[in-house]
Amino acid sequence: MSNPEIEAQLAPLRERVQEQGNLVRELKAKGAPELDVKKAVAELKVRKKVLEEKELALTPSIVSFDRAKMEDLLKRRFFYDQSFAIYGGITGQYDFGPMGCALKSNILALWRQFFSLEEQMLEVDCSMLTPEPVLKASGHVERFADLMVKDVKTGECFRLDHLIKQALEKLSKAKDATASLQAECEDIIIKLDGLNKQELADVLAKYDIKSPLTGNDLTEPIEFNLMFATQIGPTGLVKGFLRPETAQGIFVNFKRLLEFNQGKLPFAVAQIGNSFRNEISPRSGLIRVREFTMAEIEHFCDPSLKDHPKFAKVAGEKLTLYSACNQMDGKSSQQSTIGEAVASQLVANETLGYYMARIQQFLHAIGIKPECLRFRQHMGNEMAHYACDCWDAEILTSYGWVECVGCADRSAYDLSQHTAATGVRLVAEKRLPAPKTVEVSEIVPNKQALGKTFKKEAKAITDALAKLSLDDIKQVEAQLATGGPYKLTLPDGATHELGAETIGVKHATKTVHVEEFIPSVVEPSFGIGRIMYALLEHSFQCRDGDEQRCYFTLPPLVAPLKCSILPLSNNAEFQPYTQQLSAALTKAELSHKVDDSSGSIGRRYARTDEIAIPYGITVDFDTLKEPHTVTLRDRNTMKQVRIGLDVVVGVVKDLATTRLTWAQVLEQYPAFEQQEATK
Amino acid sequence: MSNPEIEAQLAPLRERVQEQGNLVRELKAKGAPELDVKKAVAELKVRKKVLEEKELALTPSIVSFDRAKMEDLLKRRFFYDQSFAIYGGITGQYDFGPMGCALKSNILALWRQFFSLEEQMLEVDCSMLTPEPVLKASGHVERFADLMVKDVKTGECFRLDHLIKQALEKLSKAKDATASLQAECEDIIIKLDGLNKQELADVLAKYDIKSPLTGNDLTEPIEFNLMFATQIGPTGLVKGFLRPETAQGIFVNFKRLLEFNQGKLPFAVAQIGNSFRNEISPRSGLIRVREFTMAEIEHFCDPSLKDHPKFAKVAGEKLTLYSACNQMDGKSSQQSTIGEAVASQLVANETLGYYMARIQQFLHAIGIKPECLRFRQHMGNEMAHYACDCWDAEILTSYGWVECVGCADRSAYDLSQHTAATGVRLVAEKRLPAPKTVEVSEIVPNKQALGKTFKKEAKAITDALAKLSLDDIKQVEAQLATGGPYKLTLPDGATHELGAETIGVKHATKTVHVEEFIPSVVEPSFGIGRIMYALLEHSFQCRDGDEQRCYFTLPPLVAPLKCSILPLSNNAEFQPYTQQLSAALTKAELSHKVDDSSGSIGRRYARTDEIAIPYGITVDFDTLKEPHTVTLRDRNTMKQVRIGLDVVVGVVKDLATTRLTWAQVLEQYPAFEQQEATK
Repeated sequence: MSNPEIEAQLAPLRERVQEQGNLVRELKAKGAPELDVKKAVAELKVRKKVLEEKELALTPSIVSFDRAKMEDLLKRRFFYDQSFAIYGGITGQYDFGPMGCALKSNILALWRQFFSLEEQMLEVDCSMLTPEPVLKASGHVERFADLMVKDVKTGECFRLDHLIKQALEKLSKAKDATASLQAECEDIIIKLDGLNKQELADVLAKYDIKSPLTGNDLTEPIEFNLMFATQIGPTGLVKGFLRPETAQGIFVNFKRLLEFNQGKLPFAVAQIGNSFRNEISPRSGLIRVREFTMAEIEHFCDPSLKDHPKFAKVAGEKLTLYSACNQMDGKSSQQSTIGEAVASQLVANETLGYYMARIQQFLHAIGIKPECLRFRQHMGNEMAHYACDCWDAEILTSYGWVECVGCADRSAYDLSQHTAATGVRLVAEKRLPAPKTVEVSEIVPNKQALGKTFKKEAKAITDALAKLSLDDIKQVEAQLATGGPYKLTLPDGATHELGAETIGVKHATKTVHVEEFIPSVVEPSFGIGRIMYALLEHSFQCRDGDEQRCYFTLPPLVAPLKCSILPLSNNAEFQPYTQQLSAALTKAELSHKVDDSSGSIGRRYARTDEIAIPYGITVDFDTLKEPHTVTLRDRNTMKQVRIGLDVVVGVVKDLATTRLTWAQVLEQYPAFEQQEATK
Repeated sequence: MSNPEIEAQLAPLRERVQEQGNLVRELKAKGAPELDVKKAVAELKVRKKVLEEKELALTPSIVSFDRAKMEDLLKRRFFYDQSFAIYGGITGQYDFGPMGCALKSNILALWRQFFSLEEQMLEVDCSMLTPEPVLKASGHVERFADLMVKDVKTGECFRLDHLIKQALEKLSKAKDATASLQAECEDIIIKLDGLNKQELADVLAKYDIKSPLTGNDLTEPIEFNLMFATQIGPTGLVKGFLRPETAQGIFVNFKRLLEFNQGKLPFAVAQIGNSFRNEISPRSGLIRVREFTMAEIEHFCDPSLKDHPKFAKVAGEKLTLYSACNQMDGKSSQQSTIGEAVASQLVANETLGYYMARIQQFLHAIGIKPECLRFRQHMGNEMAHYACDCWDAEILTSYGWVECVGCADRSAYDLSQHTAATGVRLVAEKRLPAPKTVEVSEIVPNKQALGKTFKKEAKAITDALAKLSLDDIKQVEAQLATGGPYKLTLPDGATHELGAETIGVKHATKTVHVEEFIPSVVEPSFGIGRIMYALLEHSFQCRDGDEQRCYFTLPPLVAPLKCSILPLSNNAEFQPYTQQLSAALTKAELSHKVDDSSGSIGRRYARTDEIAIPYGITVDFDTLKEPHTVTLRDRNTMKQVRIGLDVVVGVVKDLATTRLTWAQVLEQYPAFEQQEATK
């Protein structure tokens, strides 16, 4: 973005963002009412968006891309397609066909190697069906919702913000729209993100917005929770949800995992699995779906020790960072090594920085274009309720910049919530530099008196007393000192009055060697479907001079199949060679496809290019002669070499595992130029 | 089971089975009422069970196994454990910890290599959330249910058959039970499996059975569908279920998959994924759960061509076959090569036989004991509604013989059902040996007349006419011939009368080169959790003379981690070697664990044995000297060798990928005897 002509065009837009960014800072500094800050932030976001769209429009090389053509190919060769299409289909659900499934599982296999194996993470596999109390504690039952309205007659649902935006745009474009109405509409659209439920309801009423499909009246705004609800077991009494993220499964197992790690921190836990979100009206293909695969890492560490032992290994990795500050100042993103970024505290700590660098290395390895990847920091007001710092890896696609990997410092939020909800202390211990003497207070129940007074309830009371916090105990002591009884509330809600005849408070000192603390969590969270989609866009190409011959330049590491075997014709003499090659490729664990159909060789090459097969072996009449040779073709360059039948599988294995490059193959083996011409 | 003493004890039980088997055959032959046959079959099953239990009891070497001890280890080292335990847990749901998850993903990786890669199957990954119409067509909405009753006051649910069995057993064991009551109870328990809903309700009423927990009254029997229901989208109008099997996702994509395979049969489609069953009262650990991973293959082929090109490769594989016939005759299972079994038509066709042999090879490869594996054929009356022949791979565990892999010929059932439900023809075509001339009849609508008479409805009528079958067309012709109108029913239920002025019937002949047919499906279906559980049982061992030192003899191919690195002590000089080894193992893609905790080396070996790590490298003082060496230890034998630091990783890689055996290592490297003694 350093082109001066482009920058000249962007300058006024950058200024508008900065102006607004400053206003937000000012409002926050002087402690302005929350609503004012929210509105200013909403306006800031809109100005940022205008700037970003202009930036994208001025760099056509990245976004000039024929999405319809790619989607047609993906559908035609069944990379993926709408689920249950023969039953009319369900929006937001996709089935991955052979090529999509293989691509996905290759990406996941590489992910496991790159993260789990490399860092010796603990990988787990937890239940998807989750009982309600878990998701109440995590905040999802209350907060994981979008606003919608329904057509009062047909029941058709609309996402409220989408609906208002559409309605007001239509209104302001109408022939009879006055300038003042247009300004009003524009103003509301700009502030839409910052409006609350009541404000949105007022907009609906003021402009008398109806269903865009039927013209019918609409209901009041309804909060629609995005989790799929179901019942676990036959009683209908245990409410459950399909998990909206895989993370919670890890948090509720924290104690077991810490124990598995022999009580030591830091350690990282990984999980690959599906999550579910009942989107109100999903669109944008694989970008917004109802059922999706995530790969998440929860890195648990001491909040006071967020350095990372392997940080030095990645410190020189150069990232494109789009800081919250730059976003507010209307500046563009900036290049920096992660070492500098952590040193200058732009990125909060080494652990966060380490994962950001590793995320980038992974995305580059699978074939994401480096110039289309940036890390955007969340601005204060858009941070999720659990996060204290967050950088999203965003990938540029024809849908704009898409969040594909979140990298958040969730601090102690989740473990604290589950501790509070269950009473099970999800904490770690660390050895103190020196033993410490601490005062301890504890409740001493007079068991006999309690038993006499409370009978059956006595045990529940003793249990509840044992769980009182230090602060509670102080209160008990103070209360008893006044001569009055202490009112104890049991978990079931019953309260009991306990006088000095039933309980006392004992003080003592104790030498402690360890200290308990709630670990912090750094969470890199990968949306596998989104990464896959971006990768497909980045690798989609058409042959020069032949717009109909499209292909994907997927790197061999993740390409669905590594190799094709094409007998030149259906001559029976070729068959033993084809079979021998196929068996050898299988033995070398190389996925491949034999295409012995009747099309010309050129046409069959084009078919294998479409499904991204990087290398093709052709068996021809020269193969029959001694020394037996075949041709080996490279998908991206369409160049071919002549190569011995006995070595070709080894060469393909080395190419597929990046131990060898095509350039090296070209140097070692004679070029071959004949066949492609016969198409 | 060829021990004559044992056989003598079993002989009377075998006779009782055979007697009943003959009765079943006789009843079927003379066309006895269905209920009589059902009851006879139920009795047959009970007699079979008595025989089987006796057989198991007489072969103690297989079942003498301390399940509680193994479960304690699995829990303690978090192979797997109950989900959401800190929230009280949910029965029938399990989380896999690091070792369980790694074991599972190693089994699945091997499965992919063994089936998908080897056979070039098309692997797909379909949605779990499934709209109701799909599962109506597959029969799951109607038939996938168990009977239960509820406590009328508490709502507690009980699986009806379990409840009755328990109640009657208690009744017959009561002190005041008369001989006739005892006989009555026994009789009902025996026939339980064959009773229908009304008969079971009658039993409930007759014995006045109450809730075993509260003594309260129970409801009438209720059919409880085992699928988890939810709603897709916000309207509440699209009912969906979590899939109860992965197979349906493949069937509904049949057209796309056939096209991907260029229209050719046979081809096989594989899918690995989770399925869900809302069990009424799950128990038996991993054997019966609510959420589980399946690996399914659907092999589509021409029903008249069920031979398999690679059958010759497996024909010599010896299987333990427990045929339906032997089961009815009270005979035990028999050994046979799969070649003989197919030749004698005991196994219906080569394709089914090929998969049975491959299933066995796979189960042996992961470590299932050959003597604990058999293939049991379903008897006529227990076949699922869709199957026409079915052999289950059953594995012997402490729960008895457990069905772990089903191998069913589903014939054309599923594709026919989905075709009927959607009108989309899920068929394949094959070239006829010679072109054929066929008569075709078609409806010729008089569009002008239709338009004039039916206005807006005319299009719907024309569409419906185009979909009429040949039989329908014959009826139209016959009806018009009588001079009367034909009554056409539209999909929305409306009927219209069409006279000769609006439609006619045209006859012609046509030359056809291809013939349409509905493919048959052979389905091997793997329950991954059950296989894992059986494998853990089969590999659980305690050291001779030390019952507290337990371990798993999992083969290196599937062991969660391949290697441990243990510095002899926490001497700082060991650290560079430990780190160097860890980096080299990572580069060689070998999962491993560094245990530098302070325990004695013997104790740390024991810890790594518990989590099934097959090989251990110890860094000791000799490692520091040139030439640098380490010790390599084998988990199963506890033997050690002294081996060069520069070659040890290569040797572990070869061991882990079965290119090298431990016996070969012992021959090549000097034995080492010191360390284990220091425990």
